[in-house]
Amino acid sequence: MLIKKHKNTSFLIFLMLSAIIFDIDNTLYPSYEFAELARKNAIHAMIRAGLDISESELERELKKVIRERGSNYPNHFDDVLKKFEIKNRAKFVAAAVAAYHDTKITILPFPEVPRLLLDLRDKGVKLYVASEGLEVKQWDKLIRLQIAQYFEEVFVVKTEEGGKTVSFFKQLAKKINARPEDCLMVGDREDKDIIPAKKAGFKTFRVFRGPYSKNKKTSADFCGKDLTALVKIVKKPSP
Amino acid sequence: MLIKKHKNTSFLIFLMLSAIIFDIDNTLYPSYEFAELARKNAIHAMIRAGLDISESELERELKKVIRERGSNYPNHFDDVLKKFEIKNRAKFVAAAVAAYHDTKITILPFPEVPRLLLDLRDKGVKLYVASEGLEVKQWDKLIRLQIAQYFEEVFVVKTEEGGKTVSFFKQLAKKINARPEDCLMVGDREDKDIIPAKKAGFKTFRVFRGPYSKNKKTSADFCGKDLTALVKIVKKPSP
Repeated sequence: MLIKKHKNTSFLIFLMLSAIIFDIDNTLYPSYEFAELARKNAIHAMIRAGLDISESELERELKKVIRERGSNYPNHFDDVLKKFEIKNRAKFVAAAVAAYHDTKITILPFPEVPRLLLDLRDKGVKLYVASEGLEVKQWDKLIRLQIAQYFEEVFVVKTEEGGKTVSFFKQLAKKINARPEDCLMVGDREDKDIIPAKKAGFKTFRVFRGPYSKNKKTSADFCGKDLTALVKIVKKPSP
Repeated sequence: MLIKKHKNTSFLIFLMLSAIIFDIDNTLYPSYEFAELARKNAIHAMIRAGLDISESELERELKKVIRERGSNYPNHFDDVLKKFEIKNRAKFVAAAVAAYHDTKITILPFPEVPRLLLDLRDKGVKLYVASEGLEVKQWDKLIRLQIAQYFEEVFVVKTEEGGKTVSFFKQLAKKINARPEDCLMVGDREDKDIIPAKKAGFKTFRVFRGPYSKNKKTSADFCGKDLTALVKIVKKPSP
């Protein structure tokens, strides 16, 4: 579903783009659902390993630790166990981490994604990734999703280094040797993907998926409940 | 196959043991074969991700790094890539680490192990693990092998802290409240499992499996090509 926001922007329906840049989490795969499932599996594994604390108590403390420490902190489970004053924690940490990692094996891209990426490449558009987080962790996702091969280059910026800001997008355009107005940024977050990319001069596409999809107010040029509309708005260059 | 070493020790065939202590690697599961396969899978994953270096060159450098840094060093793949002066390494590191971890899902105990552990418990013997390495890593193995539940306690000592020495085994006996002569240490390594445990007063069982199995010279009280003989030498206490 393609939502045209203003009547007077309907001429944008066909874009001559040189590059499309994708966010990863909740844009290319359901990261929110994955994280929920992985944490549930990790908690179950600790209980199965003999931890005598209820699932709901563990869930509550884990959420608290993630809120306090961020999702890339490496000792979530150890911290949760410390809060319950558990002494021999190695067993439970091992069980939780193993279950969390094993859940990764099940991750898949959103259903339209692999075919869409291939179709966009066939139209002569170069594809890139712009993601905030840890470089190896983001690559891990692209490789497990089996979509790494579609992208020319992957740009990952640490949150501590400012994350996806206006200057990040300006530099990205320079690095890929494209004019900002020939770039389309695709993402689920208004604050990280749409607003800064727009300020940098990019075209923008907001996808309403994941935990940020409730608020449908967007300043993006295009939006949709999935990514299928992208194929329609990108014009194949005449031969 | 139970090998009686001396004619005059045949009276040891039936032991009244209070505890049997197992090594993990190459004793409870084929760790050597796992490591070989995991490294091969990791190298394949890097090549699949686009690394333009031959498998044999990567294998050679990886072996060198493992020799230099030890098997618990966390940056093997990054170091290998640095040696080949690869610039954007995150992609290849992510591919290698994912493949390595995914290989863990396939690990299984040696075929006789689960039934054997259950039978030994039924005979009233308490089971323990004594392992050298990183605590979480060793627990990870026991949990993935689905045998963690059989053991009363797991003792892991870091190599840097001296590893499995005579005093480690003496302390272990104290901690589990057993006389050393009522304990049987089971392992594949003469230097780490048999000699120090014997000096601490333990009975010993050497299993000829894995890379240390070539040299059949042993000072162990018992030995075998697998662990099945253990059930035979442990006597059920009279009711």
